[in-house]
Amino acid sequence: MSEDLPQPVLIVGTGVLGTSLGLALRRREVEVLLSDRNAEHLRTASGLGAGHPYAGQQVGLVVVAVPPDHVGSEVARALADTDALVTDVGSVKTAPLRMLDGVSGIERYAGGHPMAGSERSGPLAATPTLFDGRPWAVTPHARSSAAATAAVDELARLAGASVVRLSPEEHDEAVARTSHLPHLLSVLVAGRLADAPTDHLALSGQGVRDVTRVAGGDPSLWQQIVTGNAAAVAGLLTQVRDQLDVLIDAVATGDRASLGEILELGVAGTRAIPGKHGGPLRPTASVFVSVPDHPGELARLFADAGASDVNIEDVHIDHDPARDTGLVELVVDETRADHLQTSLGGRGWETHR
Amino acid sequence: MSEDLPQPVLIVGTGVLGTSLGLALRRREVEVLLSDRNAEHLRTASGLGAGHPYAGQQVGLVVVAVPPDHVGSEVARALADTDALVTDVGSVKTAPLRMLDGVSGIERYAGGHPMAGSERSGPLAATPTLFDGRPWAVTPHARSSAAATAAVDELARLAGASVVRLSPEEHDEAVARTSHLPHLLSVLVAGRLADAPTDHLALSGQGVRDVTRVAGGDPSLWQQIVTGNAAAVAGLLTQVRDQLDVLIDAVATGDRASLGEILELGVAGTRAIPGKHGGPLRPTASVFVSVPDHPGELARLFADAGASDVNIEDVHIDHDPARDTGLVELVVDETRADHLQTSLGGRGWETHR
Repeated sequence: MSEDLPQPVLIVGTGVLGTSLGLALRRREVEVLLSDRNAEHLRTASGLGAGHPYAGQQVGLVVVAVPPDHVGSEVARALADTDALVTDVGSVKTAPLRMLDGVSGIERYAGGHPMAGSERSGPLAATPTLFDGRPWAVTPHARSSAAATAAVDELARLAGASVVRLSPEEHDEAVARTSHLPHLLSVLVAGRLADAPTDHLALSGQGVRDVTRVAGGDPSLWQQIVTGNAAAVAGLLTQVRDQLDVLIDAVATGDRASLGEILELGVAGTRAIPGKHGGPLRPTASVFVSVPDHPGELARLFADAGASDVNIEDVHIDHDPARDTGLVELVVDETRADHLQTSLGGRGWETHR
Repeated sequence: MSEDLPQPVLIVGTGVLGTSLGLALRRREVEVLLSDRNAEHLRTASGLGAGHPYAGQQVGLVVVAVPPDHVGSEVARALADTDALVTDVGSVKTAPLRMLDGVSGIERYAGGHPMAGSERSGPLAATPTLFDGRPWAVTPHARSSAAATAAVDELARLAGASVVRLSPEEHDEAVARTSHLPHLLSVLVAGRLADAPTDHLALSGQGVRDVTRVAGGDPSLWQQIVTGNAAAVAGLLTQVRDQLDVLIDAVATGDRASLGEILELGVAGTRAIPGKHGGPLRPTASVFVSVPDHPGELARLFADAGASDVNIEDVHIDHDPARDTGLVELVVDETRADHLQTSLGGRGWETHR
């Protein structure tokens, strides 16, 4: 139970985000009300324990959790219909704000955006742990009241997330760079695979799989996200096109110096991504292990790795396209890789660095 | 011991690929000789058991395992200095072939390219398991003899790899699409992160990490690879630029239909990548599990997952930027996800789909 959160909280929209938020808040005994135009979704979310159906009672905070296209109009409706503080969980922040220009009570609104989602949609995909430890951008605009901003901070914390404070403009620039641009470039790479000869695709390794994974995301959702953040996305895409022109020229003319500069900038970019727990990126190293591809073998590997007292930072599994073995890459702190390799080797695993 | 492989095999170049190949062949009792301009690398590789130093004796097959820039000249030297069959393990195939135009004995050469590598270099990074189950492109040219091609097939099989037969031109088109293009686009995305404000990068999630992972690769190696495959790479980059122009226009003008077409093509591309064991891609689903971030917890999770008799197809770990928990994504056959989630839930894990 929180003293700082205005209650009850009304969640508008019981998709995977809204329902997950209700479940997360209920863990902390926050009073939650739910509304949705889709009566079946509302019943399901309520049945899951995400909150009680809204029946027009007085509320302290409205959380708009509807698809990107409808965030602006639903925030305006909440400001008009209630005297509560209002926030939202949409992926873009300036476009809905433009729709709110001149709306009375705008100071009661401060935006938010949890960096969490699911490949599934609807209330049945919801989980109370969806936001645990994820960043939650809190994006007050110039006229947001201190009370509105504080309420969104507290909402994010109660949901289990970490607050990252940004202006709406900064937020949209940030997600254009860290989410929308990577998504669209991944889509362009994947698009070149769509009509490739099958025997060419037989050479696909882990690299192309990693680069194109996000390109499998729901096109209709991404249409709304990208359109809603058009200015920031178009600006970055134009920067990439300019770099791409330099790159094409460097490749076509064999200009190794220009090519090298572009490649070095890419390396610098990978190092700029914050490391684990928000701290500076620690150097890591990989230990590769050949693992028979059937149930239980990964368990045995991780048990053995755990027994070596080395913390696994990341794992990649590269499947053998032709036989029943997999190659598991264990990413660990650079200073621990030798110890892990020796330890696994001593337990009979085929390893290499 | 193989009857079909001309022996002894001389490996020219004792970096990570050459030394790993020697170690892999020695597992099968193939007679291996080694040469390298770098005497220390040669001593190390030989000391590791990858083969004996070459002293001018008669050889059956020469494997050129030198950096991309030097493959053509080393293949020419091997054809001139010996009457052996010759192959190489370079990342591009038509550029060295152009250098060999008119060279006597060219029919004794057939190219090859194992789809395996390491982020480390030098003989100490070598391992006999490097090629196990990986694709090995075998790329005879128009005048390659049947004996030369058969020898490379056998070499790949003895090293533990699966043969994928392609012409040199097809190979270069294939790796341009499945390796060089993804690498360069990943570099362009990463380049946009290099000078981004730190608080913007705080919103980085798993998507941007996946898309940019390969961009951390060695720039000097990639300079050689890309320059060596300039025509195919420039062609694909130009296709991407044309698509990017359409995309920028669609974003800037809010043309959702065009945007949707591009996004749908990306989804189709991700589905075109061959699935596990070379078969058609089976539908998978993800089960997410909250895991405390210290040694042993992953082991416990994988032991519990193993006990549920569900085969884990892939694993992603998304670290909590603010606290000591991680979110583990277990990718499994779609038909097994419910069972896995129920089973893990019953063992006390916080899960969601």
